[in-house]
Amino acid sequence: MTDLSINTELATKILSDFINSEIIRTGYKKAVLGISGGLDSALVCVLAARALGPKNVLAIRMPYRTSSQDSLDDADKIIELSGVESLTFPITAMADALIESTPDMDTTRKGNIMARMRMIVLYDQSAAFGGLVVGTGNKTEILLGYTTLYGDSACALNPLGDLYKTQVRQLANELGIPPAIVNKPPSADLWAGQTDEGDLGFTYAEVDQLLYLLVDERYSPQECIAAGFKEEFVKEVMRRVQRNHFKRVMPPICKLNNRTIGYDFLYMRDWGT
Amino acid sequence: MTDLSINTELATKILSDFINSEIIRTGYKKAVLGISGGLDSALVCVLAARALGPKNVLAIRMPYRTSSQDSLDDADKIIELSGVESLTFPITAMADALIESTPDMDTTRKGNIMARMRMIVLYDQSAAFGGLVVGTGNKTEILLGYTTLYGDSACALNPLGDLYKTQVRQLANELGIPPAIVNKPPSADLWAGQTDEGDLGFTYAEVDQLLYLLVDERYSPQECIAAGFKEEFVKEVMRRVQRNHFKRVMPPICKLNNRTIGYDFLYMRDWGT
Repeated sequence: MTDLSINTELATKILSDFINSEIIRTGYKKAVLGISGGLDSALVCVLAARALGPKNVLAIRMPYRTSSQDSLDDADKIIELSGVESLTFPITAMADALIESTPDMDTTRKGNIMARMRMIVLYDQSAAFGGLVVGTGNKTEILLGYTTLYGDSACALNPLGDLYKTQVRQLANELGIPPAIVNKPPSADLWAGQTDEGDLGFTYAEVDQLLYLLVDERYSPQECIAAGFKEEFVKEVMRRVQRNHFKRVMPPICKLNNRTIGYDFLYMRDWGT
Repeated sequence: MTDLSINTELATKILSDFINSEIIRTGYKKAVLGISGGLDSALVCVLAARALGPKNVLAIRMPYRTSSQDSLDDADKIIELSGVESLTFPITAMADALIESTPDMDTTRKGNIMARMRMIVLYDQSAAFGGLVVGTGNKTEILLGYTTLYGDSACALNPLGDLYKTQVRQLANELGIPPAIVNKPPSADLWAGQTDEGDLGFTYAEVDQLLYLLVDERYSPQECIAAGFKEEFVKEVMRRVQRNHFKRVMPPICKLNNRTIGYDFLYMRDWGT
């Protein structure tokens, strides 16, 4: 077992400075986030409240009709604990206007529609509240592509995107997130009994160990197998990371002129500002 | 006046190959696009039909209740001309479920909601049809940020993203798009009488001349002024390009581990696949 633990005091300071500086440099001082009752958004809520002051943070609960009451209650606990502003905005009418147009729509399509409807509400409320949308995705789910493109992955800044789920848990414990929230099985809450680990077929604790070696330590697949991981597991995880690469980059543009967005027109640095 | 004209025969071949290879390499052979009745989506529809065969392209009309009948009719003309599959999917119920929750919502918020609802329909139909979403944004609007983030800018590949509007017009003429569609004033069609050039405060013909010098020819602002552009116009256009830079890049992630998505974990090349 590789020790994935982080210096939580230092990480809290870096994360708080990141949230602050990314928002201030764009001329804003407020943040908006979706709060699901799960661990990632709980931690981002607490960090944003520290970074910006609780009155500058708006946490939005966006239940669909199948969302569990437990999730809503857990979201409330975090809102109370952090002292942020809050709002509840059900997405049922919006989502069902599309879902009900297709008989027997599968759960993947439904889940993507819900995640994207939440993005629309967040961005609309971002305009109303005058704050930037802070993302809540962690490194494990971004690498595995266990996210909805233009849905839950959509944000203006992403504080937790370089922390594995294992590290999110450690930091959340340290920052006083209630153990019931830290320890409950992670879930997208799309139907009763759904869990991330059930969908994925492995636990975060296992996959974080492997991803850390593959990505952060640059192990080859062979070295991971030599370190004790099953070949099939290594292959399956690498397949997932590769197959979902498109979610981590901008869409490709066809190069036809001298200087192309995304290739050689990349930043404003040479514009002297 | 700088000559922005392109070799349309070569551009058509490059664009067609781009659409084909970007879709094939992901294991797909079909494409989905939103067709508004405007010039950009008309050109993409014709190019996609050439690249993939018309039966592999699904063009979706997504009117809101205020969309003009003329736009729908123009979309139909292109569908007929190109021979692609088509579908009409009104977004009124979805959009109004959110718009009507806020009294007197401003037109910017409404426009963003509509653009994002269309993205949701496109991505959902992409799953149903088994094709990738082809974007229709051009270089002028991407540089100016005259797009909705996670709305009309959302796609799997973007053929026209390196062509200025002036060049899109030239190519569309060459490929037999009806002159009525090529020459009508570009519009997001959010309310009667809206035009892009009215919103922006300048014409595409003017701004394309300036953007080409600034971006493709790497002129300094001073050199653009010396070339005959008004100082205020140069400043305003540069402000727009800079202010909207965030729409052209992935959201920043806070670096906390050895190898971070978007910084030093960028591609799969070193994974040997």
